[in-house]
Amino acid sequence: MALSEFALIERYFRNCGVSRQDVTLGVGDDAALLAVTPGCTLVAAADTLVAGVHFPPDSPPASVGHRALAVNLSDLAAMGARPAWALLALTLPEAAETWLGEFASGLCALARAHSVALVGGDTTCGPLCVTVSLLGHVPAGQALRRSGGHAGDALFVSGTPGDAAAGLALEQGRLQAPDAARSWLRERFLLPTPRMALGERLRAYASACIDVSDGLLGDVGKLAAASRVGAQLDHGALPLSQALLEAVGEAHARELALTGGDDYELCFAVPPDNLTRLLSELPPERWGYTRIGVLRDAVGVDVVRDGTVMEFSHSGYEHFA
Amino acid sequence: MALSEFALIERYFRNCGVSRQDVTLGVGDDAALLAVTPGCTLVAAADTLVAGVHFPPDSPPASVGHRALAVNLSDLAAMGARPAWALLALTLPEAAETWLGEFASGLCALARAHSVALVGGDTTCGPLCVTVSLLGHVPAGQALRRSGGHAGDALFVSGTPGDAAAGLALEQGRLQAPDAARSWLRERFLLPTPRMALGERLRAYASACIDVSDGLLGDVGKLAAASRVGAQLDHGALPLSQALLEAVGEAHARELALTGGDDYELCFAVPPDNLTRLLSELPPERWGYTRIGVLRDAVGVDVVRDGTVMEFSHSGYEHFA
Repeated sequence: MALSEFALIERYFRNCGVSRQDVTLGVGDDAALLAVTPGCTLVAAADTLVAGVHFPPDSPPASVGHRALAVNLSDLAAMGARPAWALLALTLPEAAETWLGEFASGLCALARAHSVALVGGDTTCGPLCVTVSLLGHVPAGQALRRSGGHAGDALFVSGTPGDAAAGLALEQGRLQAPDAARSWLRERFLLPTPRMALGERLRAYASACIDVSDGLLGDVGKLAAASRVGAQLDHGALPLSQALLEAVGEAHARELALTGGDDYELCFAVPPDNLTRLLSELPPERWGYTRIGVLRDAVGVDVVRDGTVMEFSHSGYEHFA
Repeated sequence: MALSEFALIERYFRNCGVSRQDVTLGVGDDAALLAVTPGCTLVAAADTLVAGVHFPPDSPPASVGHRALAVNLSDLAAMGARPAWALLALTLPEAAETWLGEFASGLCALARAHSVALVGGDTTCGPLCVTVSLLGHVPAGQALRRSGGHAGDALFVSGTPGDAAAGLALEQGRLQAPDAARSWLRERFLLPTPRMALGERLRAYASACIDVSDGLLGDVGKLAAASRVGAQLDHGALPLSQALLEAVGEAHARELALTGGDDYELCFAVPPDNLTRLLSELPPERWGYTRIGVLRDAVGVDVVRDGTVMEFSHSGYEHFA
């Protein structure tokens, strides 16, 4: 237990992720030295997970490590960027070696999968809280933004939103489900899949993109507002997993797909002129995305079911609300 | 109190620090887009401050904001780097507007002073904890490292270490001092001065450099170990402020200078061939640094007083110890 900060970093984090040629100096000095690829713009994001807020305090440590990086990877995916380097700021109540080993294995496995090197950070003693800062590249001038959408652009979402919210409810004992559905949904919460390959490909087709993390409805609203337009979503078009349907039934599944959080999927807008090319070059059934609506001039986001606009009580997760 | 995360960021952090031409896209999207200066290496650091660990929970919020950035600025100074962009991950129990306003004013004032732009981050609800990730530049191949020192290099430290540790003790009511001393020492803890200009200048003279944050003795040990040498410090040469001498007397002052934390000064090694140039081009009395010892072949760090090697019970602040 009495592992020093130095020993802790040496043991668990010095060789975390991949070894990269562009890391001039990694973990162990006052700061990391990194060689940015010429012709590229640097992309930077930082997201925090707090125990008891973003994950149950007794979550599997590997899931906490995985998610701490995944939420940031998803931010870079939404910009069409390729990740390169991560900084880890880990605050934990005690240097519990089992917990740390599993946390590091979850984080480092996902880092390796996306060729990310852990290059620095900080370990401190306090209430469990993890901030990862992630740096990456995008070819200059080609980043996707929330603000590039226009009225008439088609709206798509990757994956099956709502699964992670149901997975969290299962994890917290607020929901029961058959075994197969249960294991799918829990994994969607515990080990989300950031859509890195899709994000990079979308640079050639999409006008705007956002990471779906706080609930699809709210995040569509953010993309639309940044683009100074509104949006209309087709309630019947929302993609639902078989597991979610089995666990909560169709009505609740559609509500979770709209307002659940922690999906880490991509929502993106595609101009009419790019649609044919998108659908043939990135076949939706292979790339796992679905058309769910359209951007329009009128502000706000409407969800339309059988020709009628529905009302929703809340549009996504909001801290301090 | 019921300030949304979006409103909070808009109100307190959107225009924090300076506006920079090299920020292609700042706060408000999934990630920031940044144009790295050609010919430069990117320098990246992330440090966390936890309430009750790194600062008293009732610290002035402006001090918490100042220190959250200062500790990272000091890391970049130790690399000889110039800061450019910061990401703020702020976890706080509630969106208390007075606290936030003062926190932001402390952070943003220091950001402006060093031409740093706040380009992104995350605000979450939880126990008070602040992680700043700071990015900057250093001309390619010119960064200072801990590992460049050689036996025979002279060792220097900036400022008057020990002041901040006394300031913290005053802040916590563990120490009393006359008013003038008290106000100097408290300010050295609450509003430390990262040595940015000195760090950049030292690229032309120093062989190795480290940020003094966990106690001078321990940090000299880290520089020496990274350089695969040892060090000898001259107890009588340690620079002490008048305020520290008044507050704790000479013996305790020298002990605090060696083992207190939170100094955010620079300790650096200079090869004999560069000494004359250093002392004439960066006059110590103007730049505020002092010669305190020498690197040597024998491993470990000795503190010598009147020809005798002293023993110390601890060598610096250590989490999880």
